[in-house]
This record gives sequence, C-alpha cells and structure tokens, in this order.
Amino acid sequence: MRWPAGVRSSAAACGIKTDGASDVGLLVADDPVAWAGTFTTNAAAAACVGWDRNLRGAPVRAVVVNSGNANACTGEAGRAAVVTSSEGVAGALGCSPQEVLVSSTGTIGIPLDATLITEGLPGLTRDLSDDAGPFARAILTTDTYPKAASTSVGAATIAGVAKGAAMMAPNMATMLAFVATDARSSVEALQASLNDAVNRTFNRLCLDACESTNDMVIVLATGRGPSVEPNELTAGLTEVCAELAEKIARDAEGGTKLLRISIEGALDEPAAVSLGKAVASSDLWRAAAHGGDPNWGRILSALGACDRGLDLERVEVALGDEIVFAKGEPIGRLAVAAATLRRSEVAIRCVVGDGPGEAEVLSADLSEEYVTLNAEGAT
Amino acid sequence: MRWPAGVRSSAAACGIKTDGASDVGLLVADDPVAWAGTFTTNAAAAACVGWDRNLRGAPVRAVVVNSGNANACTGEAGRAAVVTSSEGVAGALGCSPQEVLVSSTGTIGIPLDATLITEGLPGLTRDLSDDAGPFARAILTTDTYPKAASTSVGAATIAGVAKGAAMMAPNMATMLAFVATDARSSVEALQASLNDAVNRTFNRLCLDACESTNDMVIVLATGRGPSVEPNELTAGLTEVCAELAEKIARDAEGGTKLLRISIEGALDEPAAVSLGKAVASSDLWRAAAHGGDPNWGRILSALGACDRGLDLERVEVALGDEIVFAKGEPIGRLAVAAATLRRSEVAIRCVVGDGPGEAEVLSADLSEEYVTLNAEGAT
Repeated sequence: MRWPAGVRSSAAACGIKTDGASDVGLLVADDPVAWAGTFTTNAAAAACVGWDRNLRGAPVRAVVVNSGNANACTGEAGRAAVVTSSEGVAGALGCSPQEVLVSSTGTIGIPLDATLITEGLPGLTRDLSDDAGPFARAILTTDTYPKAASTSVGAATIAGVAKGAAMMAPNMATMLAFVATDARSSVEALQASLNDAVNRTFNRLCLDACESTNDMVIVLATGRGPSVEPNELTAGLTEVCAELAEKIARDAEGGTKLLRISIEGALDEPAAVSLGKAVASSDLWRAAAHGGDPNWGRILSALGACDRGLDLERVEVALGDEIVFAKGEPIGRLAVAAATLRRSEVAIRCVVGDGPGEAEVLSADLSEEYVTLNAEGAT
Repeated sequence: MRWPAGVRSSAAACGIKTDGASDVGLLVADDPVAWAGTFTTNAAAAACVGWDRNLRGAPVRAVVVNSGNANACTGEAGRAAVVTSSEGVAGALGCSPQEVLVSSTGTIGIPLDATLITEGLPGLTRDLSDDAGPFARAILTTDTYPKAASTSVGAATIAGVAKGAAMMAPNMATMLAFVATDARSSVEALQASLNDAVNRTFNRLCLDACESTNDMVIVLATGRGPSVEPNELTAGLTEVCAELAEKIARDAEGGTKLLRISIEGALDEPAAVSLGKAVASSDLWRAAAHGGDPNWGRILSALGACDRGLDLERVEVALGDEIVFAKGEPIGRLAVAAATLRRSEVAIRCVVGDGPGEAEVLSADLSEEYVTLNAEGAT
C-alpha cells in the first residue's frame, strides 16, 4: 500500500525486539500537517499517550513508533525516553520535538532504551518512501501479518495501517493504527470524523476484553488533496478503520476464526454494543466456538448477565443461518449450527427485543495457543 | 462431613450424565424448616431458579439437585421438568411440591428428562443419611473433588457443600452451594445473614468472568439447636461460605494455582471489589500467572481500565512479598516475584490509594486445559 502524496515511512531493526526483527517505524509528512488522534483511556496509559495528548491542536511532522516495549508504567525514565525519541526525530527532520508524535507497543513495565531508536534514525530518514509495507511490519508484536487498508473519498485518498492481536478491548486500547489522507479538513472536523469512525470500528472489537495502556489511532491530513464534506470524511475513515479492525480480529492471538456478532432489537445502539461485547468477551463461548461446539447457552448466559431485564421470550439466536433459540425455546438443528462453526468466519446473530438498537461486534475464538502465547510472556 | 441433626442427604446415578456418574442429590429435612437462598440474577436464569424464588418465605422439606444438565433456556419443557421433579419428591416424602426446592447444573439448552430423576427417588429416599459426602459428589460437573465446610456458632453448627469450576463469576451464578444449620433463626434474619455472607464470599470469586444461569446458595435452618444472634449467624455462614468459595477457586477448570487478590486503599468497599474483579478476570494476567511470568503490567492495565481516575503515583503492587511497582515506578526483583508465581497459592496485593475500601477477590490461573475442556463442550 502507498501513502497519499506528501507522506512517507520507513522501518528499521533497532534491537528493541530481542529476535532482531524490525521494531521501529517512522512516518513523516513532508510539511507540518493537521492530525487527530484517539487514545486509550486506561489510567495506566503509557508515557507516549500523555505526550501525544499534549500536542493536540498543533500540526505535526512525524510519528515514531516502536514495538517490543510498551514503555508503560515505566515512571520518570519512561517519560524521559519519550522526550529523547521526539528530540531525536526532530533533530533528524529539522523540526520541533513538539511536532513529533510518539507511540509504543509491547511489554508493559520494562524500561525503554530510547537511544536504540535515536541510533536508528540515520537509516530511518534515509529509507523513507511512500511504500507503507515496512512501517506496517515494524509496528507488529505477536501479529502474524501486517494490516493495511485504503479507500478514496471523492478525489481524496485515505490509507492506514494497524497492529494488534491481544490485550484487545480498544476503548481505545493494545492496538495502534496510523492513517493518512490528503483530504483538506479542519482539525476539529478531522477529530470528529475520527471519533465517529473509531467508535464504530475499533471500539467494537473485543478479543480478550483486556484493555491496553498504549492504544492509539492517529490520522494525518496533508491537505494536498481536495476538501471533503465531514460526512464523507467520516465515511471514508470508517471504511478504512473497519477494514483494519477486521484484519486485527482475523489475526487474534491463537484465533482460528472471526466471530461476527450482530445484535438487533436492543433499546438503543450503546445497549446493542454492550450486549455484543458481552458475547464477544465470554471465554466460555469463545472456547466453544474454537472447538466447533454450538453451545449457544453460553451466548444466552452472556446476554442475560449483561441485561438483567432481558426477556427470553423475545430473544432469537442464530449461528450462521440456523436459528437455535427463539421465543423462549431451544430450536434448530445443532449439527447445522456446528457446521457453521467450522468456517473461518462465524456469524452470530442475536435479536434481543424489538428496539431500534443494533450493532456489530467483532471477536475471535479462544484457543489453547492464546494461553500458551501469553503464559510465555510474548507481549 | 455430617449434616446437623434433622438433615439427611443421598445421591444416585440416574443417567443424566452420560458417563454413569452420580448425578442426582437429595437433601431432606425431617420436618419443614426455614430456608433462605440467593440466586443468579442472570436474565436467562434456569427454570428451577424461578420455581425456588416463588417458594420464598414458606418452610421447605427438601432440595433436589441434578448435575449434567442445567435445564436453562429450555422453555416450557424445562418448566414442566421442574414441576415433575418437585411433585416426584413431594410424593416420595409425603409433602407438598411447594415444599421442594429444585436445583440444576450442567449444559444449558438441552431438554431435561425429569423422569430420570423421579425413577431414582425410591433409591434416593432409601439411602438418606447424615453423611453429606455422596450428595456433595452428585452435584459436581467438571469439578475434580467435592467441596464441604462446616463450623460451629456457639452450640449451633453450620455445614455446607458446594460445586463449581467454571462459568464462575457468581452474582449469584455456575456454582451451587447447600448449607444447613440447626440454629434457630427467623427467615428474615437467615436471609439477611446469607446475603451478607454470600456478598463477602461467593460474590468475590471470579474465575472466567462468565456468569451462570443456575447459581444458587440455599441454607436450611432446622431450628433444633440454640437461637443465635444475627451477627453470629452471619459470621458462621460467612466462614462456611468463604471456605467453600476457596475450595471452588482451587478446583477451577484447568487451574493450577489459587490467586488471592487483595485491594487496599480504594474509595470504598464496592470500588475495591470492582478493582479486584478486574484483575481476577484478566485473561492476560491469568495466563501470565499460569506460565509463572511476573508480568505485573497486566495487573496495572486491568486496574487502569477499571478505574480511569487511578493515580499511578499512589499505586503499589506486590506479588507475594515482593513489591514490583510503587510511586509510579517499576521496582523490585522480578526473579523473586517469579518464584512467588510457582507456588500453589499466589498473593497479589494492590494498594490503589489511601481510601478506606479494601476487599479480597479469589481467582485462578488460565491454562490451556481450560480452553481444551470448554472447546470440548464439557459443561
């Protein structure tokens, strides 16, 4: 994938990851550009999250991202590492440190040696190109493939990359996404469009219900392209974010299938999202889905725990096209439902009443491999 | 363990479990006795939960419990199965069906053939004895051992049994506990004491954060013994329930160690419970604990997601006796913390401020075996 004109990126292996893999990405705009961002609301947010939040409103030139170390809960040394990184990038690009956004992902609580990043900057600035590929790979941790998506909004383009495979209950949270567009937009409109897009995409992704300290979605707008209506911009950002969110769900740690949970008939949209997340975060249902066991009772128990006023007589649950529960009664053919669960993508449709609220939440199955990966301390 | 005088129990293999194991337990009081109960608040509550709730206030003679089938989300047939069971027991004991409490645990959504229970009643009534052992075993599902506890309150005794190994986030929920005492107590005082005891014990147990449709704790009070003060009764019930809750946590599906999470310095006790449950339900922390990885960042991210106003500068986290984070900084020896995680019981102590709220929450580690068990559809 190519970045819009005026945006370039590069990547390097700077020794933060112990296996020698690419672990620092640099995203650079040729000129200072408008940007918007959404960040984790976790109280244990990483030092870089606080740094970036403080830069809101003013244009930026670059985003420097490292993987392999979250630089979260690392105290004063962690804050100093952010300053070192931003000052290093500013020196290399000839801009102010306040024009450099910083982002990290990896293990929490381990001091980050920022000189590993600054020592890589000569190569990083030399290698800048409009190919987003190396940058998309440098930001990965336990992800098994890079995640990119792009679309066009009239004559403007929007392109983005993301990472994330666990500690995944963005609100925001262990996901990162970096998007760039050549659309012309005010900062306020850009932020409003991004908020809307993120709420409908990344914030409806729930893998292990563990919220990260480092999540962030950043969009850079070069303004070199045409001006677009706010609703068009929102639609475009939503399209790119939705595709990235789905790619994250498909790459869930240990996951073997995408769970697409749709809720209909809820009181309102937030209620539908809550119910969807309740199903999405049920370890028991996710394990059953992994094993191909159409144990829909675990879906109902998750719904009933989320909404204690749920009226079972008005609930309908379907796995794929097979309705397994309706009007208070178990129905349907479990063998057909079980066949649905053998697919790489499983649709779980829950009608919970006759209200107007509906939402789709993405998740993945829970496998032994997820436990093995996280018992080993992979992230 | 022996029941208090006037209470007897028995068990039988009635063919509800396909492996031929004991699956029906009958608990009988010689005369109608006062009782109190706490039940799951899940909207998808099983038919038996609704039946029992309706019997509140009036004395009962018996509790009939089956394992291997939750009889939840089973519609009209499920409600009929409860009536069949209670009528069967009433016929065998010569009492009214409204004097028979019914309880079930097992897979949700599978029709329960209650004639399997009624056909077992001749043997069940014949085998009644004051030995609680067979009953304690009959109510198990994926549990690996029976769970019993008893204490004395002055001259009165309190004895109870419980089951539970997963779908464990009682509120109430997939746990059952049956307690009997010879203490004399009004129904109101008994219910108040039980509520208090359950809130401080079973409701502070969180294994997989999945709330069951069938949880219930029932206490029978024969009144044959001495009258006890309400606060003594509460203390005694709390002691028995706490021991049963701990036994459940130690028998968590796939679990290899007990996680004893204590929260101090919270705003108030409910806030402390919420923070403790946030740590207890973190799949990532539970997997790290399983692997012996002292990844305390996952504890902080869980705390920070639960309380977005958490001030890291005032947070202290210790694994065993080793403080690993304090005053906003990582400290301590990870090797010592890792050694703590190799024990069968791990103390996780989190100071979150200087408020008066404190609570202890029990959990267990998350292993590959938990996923395997639940992918196979064991419960």
